[in-house]
Amino acid sequence: MQALVYKGEGQLALEDHPVPQLKEPTDAIVKGVGIVQEPGAAVSRFKKGDHVLINCITSCATCEYCRRGMYSHCTQGGWILGNTVDGTQAEYVRIPQADSSLHHVPGDVDEKSLVMFSDIFPTGLECGVLNSKVQPGSSVAIVGAGPVGLAALMTSKLYSPSTIIVIDKDPKRLEVAKKLGADHVINSGETSAEEAVMRLTNKVGCDAVIEAVGVAATLEMAQDLVAPGGTIANVGVHGTSCTLKIEKLWDRNMSLTTRLVDTVTTPMLLKLFAAGGIQPGKLITHELPFKDMEKAYTTFKAAAEHEALKMLITI
Amino acid sequence: MQALVYKGEGQLALEDHPVPQLKEPTDAIVKGVGIVQEPGAAVSRFKKGDHVLINCITSCATCEYCRRGMYSHCTQGGWILGNTVDGTQAEYVRIPQADSSLHHVPGDVDEKSLVMFSDIFPTGLECGVLNSKVQPGSSVAIVGAGPVGLAALMTSKLYSPSTIIVIDKDPKRLEVAKKLGADHVINSGETSAEEAVMRLTNKVGCDAVIEAVGVAATLEMAQDLVAPGGTIANVGVHGTSCTLKIEKLWDRNMSLTTRLVDTVTTPMLLKLFAAGGIQPGKLITHELPFKDMEKAYTTFKAAAEHEALKMLITI
Amino acid sequence: MQALVYKGEGQLALEDHPVPQLKEPTDAIVKGVGIVQEPGAAVSRFKKGDHVLINCITSCATCEYCRRGMYSHCTQGGWILGNTVDGTQAEYVRIPQADSSLHHVPGDVDEKSLVMFSDIFPTGLECGVLNSKVQPGSSVAIVGAGPVGLAALMTSKLYSPSTIIVIDKDPKRLEVAKKLGADHVINSGETSAEEAVMRLTNKVGCDAVIEAVGVAATLEMAQDLVAPGGTIANVGVHGTSCTLKIEKLWDRNMSLTTRLVDTVTTPMLLKLFAAGGIQPGKLITHELPFKDMEKAYTTFKAAAEHEALKMLITI
Amino acid sequence: MQALVYKGEGQLALEDHPVPQLKEPTDAIVKGVGIVQEPGAAVSRFKKGDHVLINCITSCATCEYCRRGMYSHCTQGGWILGNTVDGTQAEYVRIPQADSSLHHVPGDVDEKSLVMFSDIFPTGLECGVLNSKVQPGSSVAIVGAGPVGLAALMTSKLYSPSTIIVIDKDPKRLEVAKKLGADHVINSGETSAEEAVMRLTNKVGCDAVIEAVGVAATLEMAQDLVAPGGTIANVGVHGTSCTLKIEKLWDRNMSLTTRLVDTVTTPMLLKLFAAGGIQPGKLITHELPFKDMEKAYTTFKAAAEHEALKMLITI
Repeated sequence: MQALVYKGEGQLALEDHPVPQLKEPTDAIVKGVGIVQEPGAAVSRFKKGDHVLINCITSCATCEYCRRGMYSHCTQGGWILGNTVDGTQAEYVRIPQADSSLHHVPGDVDEKSLVMFSDIFPTGLECGVLNSKVQPGSSVAIVGAGPVGLAALMTSKLYSPSTIIVIDKDPKRLEVAKKLGADHVINSGETSAEEAVMRLTNKVGCDAVIEAVGVAATLEMAQDLVAPGGTIANVGVHGTSCTLKIEKLWDRNMSLTTRLVDTVTTPMLLKLFAAGGIQPGKLITHELPFKDMEKAYTTFKAAAEHEALKMLITI
Repeated sequence: MQALVYKGEGQLALEDHPVPQLKEPTDAIVKGVGIVQEPGAAVSRFKKGDHVLINCITSCATCEYCRRGMYSHCTQGGWILGNTVDGTQAEYVRIPQADSSLHHVPGDVDEKSLVMFSDIFPTGLECGVLNSKVQPGSSVAIVGAGPVGLAALMTSKLYSPSTIIVIDKDPKRLEVAKKLGADHVINSGETSAEEAVMRLTNKVGCDAVIEAVGVAATLEMAQDLVAPGGTIANVGVHGTSCTLKIEKLWDRNMSLTTRLVDTVTTPMLLKLFAAGGIQPGKLITHELPFKDMEKAYTTFKAAAEHEALKMLITI
Repeated sequence: MQALVYKGEGQLALEDHPVPQLKEPTDAIVKGVGIVQEPGAAVSRFKKGDHVLINCITSCATCEYCRRGMYSHCTQGGWILGNTVDGTQAEYVRIPQADSSLHHVPGDVDEKSLVMFSDIFPTGLECGVLNSKVQPGSSVAIVGAGPVGLAALMTSKLYSPSTIIVIDKDPKRLEVAKKLGADHVINSGETSAEEAVMRLTNKVGCDAVIEAVGVAATLEMAQDLVAPGGTIANVGVHGTSCTLKIEKLWDRNMSLTTRLVDTVTTPMLLKLFAAGGIQPGKLITHELPFKDMEKAYTTFKAAAEHEALKMLITI
Repeated sequence: MQALVYKGEGQLALEDHPVPQLKEPTDAIVKGVGIVQEPGAAVSRFKKGDHVLINCITSCATCEYCRRGMYSHCTQGGWILGNTVDGTQAEYVRIPQADSSLHHVPGDVDEKSLVMFSDIFPTGLECGVLNSKVQPGSSVAIVGAGPVGLAALMTSKLYSPSTIIVIDKDPKRLEVAKKLGADHVINSGETSAEEAVMRLTNKVGCDAVIEAVGVAATLEMAQDLVAPGGTIANVGVHGTSCTLKIEKLWDRNMSLTTRLVDTVTTPMLLKLFAAGGIQPGKLITHELPFKDMEKAYTTFKAAAEHEALKMLITI
């Protein structure tokens, strides 16, 4: 079968790989994204031919972390697909702990956009919206209008905030944010985000500040945007330390949270999707057949020029 | 009357001051700590002669912050006693917003130690224990065994954690922590707190880490002690920024919280105290008459030699 | 001034009454609904001429119940307007504890429909939606499509449930429910509500069941509609006991809640309203000048014929 | 092997049964209570010889209910041991879904009393204490001083309530309650429980009322004991309906909850037990070898005379 393989920094290639085989009785082999090809002997919730959604996080469901809903820290699973085991950018994929790592796709829905619920949407929702406790009437600032930031924007609306402010340096992304329902957008390349947010919030700041970039500068900026009693929810993946302005924040009654997505909200997202309550397809800007997957990555590298948010790969 | 007055860095003096007068109908004049001397015309919950506890935080109870339980951010009050208005280290004191800023002392209790509920205990409990979400079975690390850290230790026991570890550099304070129920103490001047905590927690870290010092080094240390899914509750007052090790914490599903005490737990503490469920007097090591208050401050400066935790001033 | 006075069962009359006077320094006199006419000496948040919303619940903000957000059980206030003190259906009204019982109206909004936030909307939201814990993806059943039931319908949408089912015997009210966004309506006069709900929910029942009628039969019906893990939120005012089917419910992991509205959500509703996030005016079907208030009550008695939901009285 | 078999109302007999065999790869055969004899091929958390605690509730950990912590409603498991599959009163027992239905016993503890964590303690804690939201300072009433009521008493202390009142008709059980830490006991056969509770709570009632009997009269009594803002947590198994005094409760801001134990707290109880924070053995009054198990049931029927609470059966 064909599989996209990482060949070192920035190098990817479609290669011929053997079709993966069951290793444990709790595994399942899934064709693409996704139809169950072969469930292991101990898989009880899925049978051959079932249409499924693959979580980006696999989980045993029974370890101490899984019992607390922290699938990302599962002692047997976690973020292993495409990491310590072969990932899903292949024609067939072996999914460990299938009973807890797959979801049935509700009947009669357009499955095409569901792949968004594998990681992007749960990430925006769990690490961003839920962690920052968006509630009806909240003021929300989202720093970074990439796919995850936009998923945070879309899912924050499930809780009816009164204001959503999106901050980015790319005017095209800010335009998309506007279309997806941002009340205000701020181009932080052109103006001070702090001043703009304070002007928009009556000098109070935002109840929920969602960092969806992953660099020191934006997480430091987030600290200037949070209201007393508010929360900074870090979503970005960070490679370096940053400054914590604790001399300013110590009496602010605020929280700063981190989280690797647990995909605990996927069943709820699927339910809402079936009911028409959320449209993940809005983030898909490009569609390409699997054989052009290398091209997809090239396009993504040049995302700014192509205005690409998320690309859908079809088999 | 006599009042202790701050005369610049490290300088204090007992001076003769006029007895304070009512300014607003919602004020009350309270004698020492505390018997109501004169309630304002709009004070409805207190009358002359009532025995009261004075909150370190005054609150209007009706602004947006007060409605959310954030008395510390009250738009008319907050942390103003001894700050923007005259404080309580005087024979008489004017308490603004008396109805919400005073509490009735339950009958038949030893009032002497109740002053601990004005600030120390609510601070340890709210900023430390509640913010770090101590629950039955939690592992707790408290960095700093001063009065507030020890109040966090005592109030964390209300939630039955399975382990409490106290970290400090002063062996005498660690001894007190042991006596007050710490399961383990770590002298961070002699050993690595991180290594010791990891050894005690099966390499997991602590669910609740309470920083009760207020310098960069201890808040940075706290980041090395927190378990996945855990919380760092900052209690200390900080004057400078510190490092946020976000490259290590971003996927840890943790929270870092800050809070200026709101004194929302004072009624609960009083109820527990009346029922014998908490003994604040255990933190009182010295007792001095009001006229010796200058000496009290001297003693405190030399706390390490005198082994003083909290000193009770009597009128 | 003119005031509507209750003269015994079903009897109302517009009578000439003296304009009310301040009794306590914390009172305010408000003209109609509402402009502050005269604030008491201890009122600090409002001045003459301020446009205000009057809570149906007055509160001292400082008693033990108020501190817990239970204004309805305030030891000095609660549900007293139109009950133990003169009500708001008069040209002038004395509001006790004005600082906590009034709200500033945000500038630049159509004030006409705001009176809906005095009681109807907070009741539907607090006693119904919040108590039943409506969350994104929830299934909701609302029993009773009167004004409070419809306010529960409108405010439940703030939390993005996946299904809202409204049950009533009046086809006209069910039509309104449909227009306001009910996914399904059931005429319980024509069909079994239990069978219909089970059919719509895959035999599971609803996560949130809101009883907004106030008779035994509907609260008993609600017990047949609730899913495992769900909540029945009673909103109705009941005059008699009913049956608790505990032999069916004991292992259902369910809750049944009651609440007298606390109006703690009014500030949030005002914020959302100013942001365009909620349209209370949708429930106003009739508008009458104050002098025709007696007629208003006659119309309401015959509500079914007039299809009246809520009537707005203007001065 | 020997197994205790139910032979119709009140009839039990020790019979010879074949040793159970693995049916599914996720099963495990456990010897008594409990050492793993043979884990199924898909069991990953346990191996032969492991000392384990058997949950009274088995769970797949992956269905919609299990994901919400409602193991009692597991679509593949739930309360099936001793119900739809053979129970644990035998020398060997087949445990379905072993990875999620068993717990490792912490090393170096006295295992004898751990069987209390299979059902009694999680039931008192989850259905009683957690559902009724006992918090520091709460007032608690427990109706029924049988083993589950007493487990509720012992686990409520984990949250430091200010008062615990236990109500029963049996003076011997009330004596035990006193020994286990009840602040007050009421013999409801001799006095009005409502009057006694109101006298003890300053006419307010209790924040948490735990019904641990399971008959209409006690659940109706519970409704007279609950404070405004409080919760009635039903623990008892009921066979008939009762009266809901909704005309009295509708404005009380109260909740009434039901729950079949989920055993989600077992890991926490084990952690606390290992740390010395809870002593389940206190409820064991008798100890008998397995061969005398028939006698055990006879003793229990005559519990009042024998003053038996829980009997430990040893193999």
